[in-house]
Order: sequence, then C-alpha cells, then structure tokens
Amino acid sequence: MWADLSPIGRNPDTHGYRRSAWTGADADCRTWFQEQAETRGLTYETDRNGNQWAWLGDPTAGDAVVTGSHLDSVPDGGAFDGPLGVVSSFAALDELRARGAKFTKPLAITNFGDEEGARFGLACVGSRLTAGKLTREAAYELRDADGVSLPEAMEAAGYDPSTIGADPERLARIGAFVELHVEQGRALALSNSGSAAGSGDPVGIASAIWPHGRWRFDFRGEANHAGTTRLVDRRDPMLSYAETVLAARREAELAGAVATFGKIAVEPNGVNAIPSLVRGWLDSRAADQDTLDTVVTAIEKAAHDYADRHGIDLAVVRESFTPVVEFQHALRDELGAILREHTGQGRDIPVLGTGAGHDAGILSESVPTAMLFVRNPTGVSHSPAEYAAEDDCLAGVRALADVLEGLACR
Amino acid sequence: MWADLSPIGRNPDTHGYRRSAWTGADADCRTWFQEQAETRGLTYETDRNGNQWAWLGDPTAGDAVVTGSHLDSVPDGGAFDGPLGVVSSFAALDELRARGAKFTKPLAITNFGDEEGARFGLACVGSRLTAGKLTREAAYELRDADGVSLPEAMEAAGYDPSTIGADPERLARIGAFVELHVEQGRALALSNSGSAAGSGDPVGIASAIWPHGRWRFDFRGEANHAGTTRLVDRRDPMLSYAETVLAARREAELAGAVATFGKIAVEPNGVNAIPSLVRGWLDSRAADQDTLDTVVTAIEKAAHDYADRHGIDLAVVRESFTPVVEFQHALRDELGAILREHTGQGRDIPVLGTGAGHDAGILSESVPTAMLFVRNPTGVSHSPAEYAAEDDCLAGVRALADVLEGLACR
Repeated sequence: MWADLSPIGRNPDTHGYRRSAWTGADADCRTWFQEQAETRGLTYETDRNGNQWAWLGDPTAGDAVVTGSHLDSVPDGGAFDGPLGVVSSFAALDELRARGAKFTKPLAITNFGDEEGARFGLACVGSRLTAGKLTREAAYELRDADGVSLPEAMEAAGYDPSTIGADPERLARIGAFVELHVEQGRALALSNSGSAAGSGDPVGIASAIWPHGRWRFDFRGEANHAGTTRLVDRRDPMLSYAETVLAARREAELAGAVATFGKIAVEPNGVNAIPSLVRGWLDSRAADQDTLDTVVTAIEKAAHDYADRHGIDLAVVRESFTPVVEFQHALRDELGAILREHTGQGRDIPVLGTGAGHDAGILSESVPTAMLFVRNPTGVSHSPAEYAAEDDCLAGVRALADVLEGLACR
Repeated sequence: MWADLSPIGRNPDTHGYRRSAWTGADADCRTWFQEQAETRGLTYETDRNGNQWAWLGDPTAGDAVVTGSHLDSVPDGGAFDGPLGVVSSFAALDELRARGAKFTKPLAITNFGDEEGARFGLACVGSRLTAGKLTREAAYELRDADGVSLPEAMEAAGYDPSTIGADPERLARIGAFVELHVEQGRALALSNSGSAAGSGDPVGIASAIWPHGRWRFDFRGEANHAGTTRLVDRRDPMLSYAETVLAARREAELAGAVATFGKIAVEPNGVNAIPSLVRGWLDSRAADQDTLDTVVTAIEKAAHDYADRHGIDLAVVRESFTPVVEFQHALRDELGAILREHTGQGRDIPVLGTGAGHDAGILSESVPTAMLFVRNPTGVSHSPAEYAAEDDCLAGVRALADVLEGLACR
C-alpha cells in the first residue's frame, strides 16, 4: 500500500510532502483511497463534505465502528502524519480478515478532507463541517493565498460544494470512532528510555488534546533611518519582539507548557529601516486551561513591560482558541482493557496527552472517540524527517486490529 | 516651488512619498525640475545617465560650481530627504540674483536619478554610473521586484539607456559639488539643546560619511510541530535570532555605533511551526572602521555562541560594505570660513559626520565635494514624519547662497 501512496505529492528538492486540500496531489491520494476500498470489496462513498468512506457491512445499520485519519499534509510535511492512520486502517482490516474475525457491527474506514488547514488557514475543515462546527456560510468565505475560495477549489477537484454542511444523521450512525496517528512528540520514546532499544511500548492511548490558542502581538514603533538615527532616539519594535520571544520560552519552561513564535511580519522590512511594525504570532499549549492561562498572561505582561520601556505600542489579539478535549473515558478504558490483554500482555498501555489538534478531537463532542499513538523516536513531525520504525507501525496495525475486533466483533 | 512639488507621489493613506526611480511620480518630479530651470532661463539638459542639469553660464567652460540633490524617495518617505537640496538650490540662485551677485564661474543645479535605490536595490545609481562606480553591464542586470530591468524602466520613462556609463568628461568640468540635505539625525538639534528654542545652529557642514555595511545572518534549526515538540527537543532558530537582536543593540551602545536588525525572512513562517530558518539582516555603521569592526565582530561572536547553545547552524555573509568617505578638507574648510563670516556671525559652524549614504559621497573621489545639513528637530527620516522647520530651511537656503557666492562669484 505504501509503495503506491509514498510518491504522491512528494517534493523532489525537500523530500517533503505537499498534499494541500483539493490539489492534484490530494486528488491522487483520494484515487488511491478509492482503489484500496474497491480492492477489498468495500462500499465506497464520499459524504456531503467531500470526506471519503469505505464501508464493510451496512452503512445505514447504525452503531458503526469507524477508523481512519487524513491524507493531506502541511507544506513539506512528513510521510506519516495522517497517512499512517489510513494505511493502518486498511492493514488492520486485512489482519482481521486473516484472523477470520466475524463482524457484528458495520465497519468504516475514512479519509477526512483538509485536516491540516494548510491551504485555507483553518484545520479539520472536513470534520468540522460534518460535526456542525463550521457553517456552510463560513466555509464559503475561506480563501487560499491565491484568492481561490473553498467552494471553487472543491468544484475544480470535481466535488459539489453546494451541499456542504452539518451531517448529524451520519454521525448518529457511528458508535465509536478510533483514529490511529503517529505520535507528534517523544512521550512513548522517553517512557522507554531506560529500556533496551526496541523494547517498551510502541503504542499508546490518547487521554486528551491540550487546550491551545494563537495570539497576534503587534509591536508598533517608528520607522526611521537605520544609519542615522541615534540609539536613544529610536522606537524600534524589533527589540521588544526579541525580548518577548525569549520571555515566551522562559515562561513555557517554568510551567511545563510550550510557547512558540514561528511566524513574523515586519514593516517596512528594509535592511536600512528601523521597523514601524513587528507582528509576531504566539502559539501556546499546555496540559490544562489554568496552566495555559498562566503562561500566556505572563508572556503578555512581559511584552507590555518591554514595549513600555522602548516607547512601543503593543496590541495583543487572540486569533483562535480551542479548549481542552478529553476523550471519552468509557471508550478509552475499553481500549485500555483490550490492549492490556492483547498487545500489552497484561501490562498497562501508556495513556498520554497531545498538543496537536485532530479530526478525532473535532468529532469527540458528537460521537464516542478515541486515539491510538504510534511511537515516534525523534518526536519530529510536520517535517520530511518525521519517522516511525517499521516494527512500531506493524505493532500499531496489530493494536488497531485488536481494538476494532474488540469493538466490532462482539 | 514646494506647492507644485509636494503633491507628487504622495500616498493619501500613509501621507508618505512613493517616488521610486523611473515611475510616473518620478517623471512628474522631473517635469517640475525642467520647469524650474526654464522659468529661470537656465540651460536644461539630461546627461547620458538620466541625471538632470540646469546651467547658468557655459556648461563647457570648466571649473563649474554644482549644487543639487535628488527627487526620488524611499517607499513612504518624507518630503525633505532629497527635495530640500534641489528646492534650496533653485531658491539660493534666486537669492543670489536678488543680491545682484556676479557669477565668474558656471553654476549648475542637478537632480541625480535613483539615489534611494528603492526600486532596484542599489543606492545612488545615477551618480555611481557617472562616476564609473557602476558599470553599464552591471546596471543592465538590475531588476525591480516585478522583474523589470533598469534599461527597460528608463526606456519606459522616455530615456535612452543605450548610452549609460561613466562620464569623466562631465566630472572634469566640475570644480566643486555642494549638496544640501536635511540632517538624518539630531546632532544639530542636540548641540543646541541647552539653548532657547530656535537658537543655536540650523546648518552644519559634513565631515564624513560613516563606513557601513550589511550582513546576512542565517540561523538554521529544525522545522517541527509547535504544539507537540517538547522544549528540550527543539532546535528553534528564532531564539538565537532574538538573542542576537538584543546583542546587536548592546554592542552598538557600548561602542557609540548603530546596529539594526530591520529585515527578516522566516521559513516556513507558519503559526504552528517551529522555524527551520530565520534569516536576519544586520545594518551597522560607526564613525570609523575600527569601531565598526569591533561592533560587528562582537555581534557575530555572540550570535555564534547563542547558536551553538541551541544547536543552530549559523552562517554570516557580508552582503555589502562601503568604507568611510572623508569630504575634501580644503573645500570643507573653505565652506567653514564662508559660513563663519556670513551665517555664523563669527562663530564656528558645527562639523558633523553622518551614517547615511549620499550622491556627494559617490562623487567625492572624482571631484571636490562638500555637504551642508539642515537641522532636523526629531532626527526622523525615511518616514512621513520627517520634518525641518521653515526658518531652518530658509537658513539653509541663505547658507547655500553664501557658499555658492563664495565659490562661484570670486
């Protein structure tokens, strides 16, 4: 399966994947998905929001067990974030058929569209629409960097955008949704750091998705000539920005959270010009709401102090915020029990939080939802260096098969 | 004169001037120049490099006294940087005629093309070409952000680019070049800070243009997910960049120099991505070469230390460098004597260095060259807030008239 999928959308220079939603690479991935479904005799369909579904059993029977992930990528992303979950879903089905499993419930494998949000700036568009967390009207307003709207992009890819919107009837037919994903961090790798290589737990269960938000910091000073303006006469916003970048790191360290300034826009952005405006975006996440509040409040306060000292006007705007997502405890415990018996050979399976958003997080309010993570030795993701060992991927497939068998074959 | 010139190329939103070389606004400024020349019965011509000249007396006689500056601007620049020198030149001629001055040498007023280099990235193109400091071949390679080449832009503006190049014959006919310019700094304003408002010296003489250079700092780390990558696992180049910005300020303060990070480029520049690359440009200038070397060496060393600590690869490239320009001492002393007698009423006129480049600096190797600065109360330039008081501008005109009378009417 990997052999057909891995060349699609791969940039020959960076070796990273460029599979933005509704592009040619995305269409090729979708064709691959349909072929995998049809090869296995599954019933293939796309829903009103362009998400792909491959059904074993009667889609309308209800109490379905659904698994899957996404096939799109961030610009120059890795091979595993998304595709590992879809590939593992088909492989787990193959494994269950080899085991001779008898399904008592319908099973579906999904590919949710535009999870990364790389093109239109909003993540999880496919699952958000389905869950009613993004209105049709708001989706119609989304535009990419070239001004192409989401409905135009869908139409160009051969999908009908006129029917997009909430799909409660479809969600009501789902009894459980399980998403397998490569871990984006090193919690599993580190929990085994005392053991021999290859030992320990290749798979974990998600407890929660950390609350996270994005804040825009606008530092406004005074444009001036970089060669002739005395230092004491300057109102240079780059200095306050630099101090705030370092404060963010310090506060995140103190609180055990993460805080990142990864995007910046400077005006006029000339070599010989003191900037009039430095705009920096803060991404911050923590295990709980209180910690996140503490970190961001401390960073904002530090930034205001620095700005005041340099005569800089500072405005901070919260651009987005997602509260904590706790996955359903009953389903999580059920997965824990299944895996303890099969995969863990009686040992408890690690339960871990994550700072990354997922379609599973979006769906968790509407259906019982759980996630499995596959060990990532370096923790790197959203990069061509993203990696998971083959043995760990195969362990992920077995774990997913165990879970699906436990949920759908009783 | 100002009334006709001031609306040209003014942006209604920012109130800044956008008079890039060979644009419509530049053409309107050139028409204004020609009209001013013809109104005064001066002989108008453009040279092979598109610089404008207005002659009183025989252009071919030799030992000419030339004054002028430039009319183009940086994006959203102020009203004075450049135009003050050209307007003051015409006004000084009017003043000398009112005084009944008898010219013994030819006098010319000039507008050098593309001084700011805002469009093609190279400053002082008109004077560089004339002085043989920019070859015809290199000039033909210059392109603006839209890919338009310099010769294409000249041709579109109605000038013949086929003849551009060094013009030693023209320079040989110049006995002295004097450029009046608004001060880009507050040395004159501060030298009077103990006096009552409006007292002190509205005009100064340039000693030298500080040596200056541009260095590109490439901080390379590892792109990763901003939400899931533990702080200890990161190689975030934004941190080393931020520390280096602050080190640059510190080192410049220590040495009495200036150092500025005003331009930045980040990859991938995503809110939820730890950057793989932060590229920052340092502009640094100092009164002498040793001081500049000390400052830049210290910043580079600090940057390497920071980079090493965060696992960042750092490469520093010097992109451009201009050594110190000392204006001719004999002419400077002559101006000092003239102004001491007339303007200063027996007091010495301040002599000051500047961090900004000028056409006068380019020409100084080929002809005796001097500069006059008019007081700038805030020191702001390259900004709509750039300002000089009307009384100071009139004092500048009188000083320039005194100087031209002293040089051309003996």
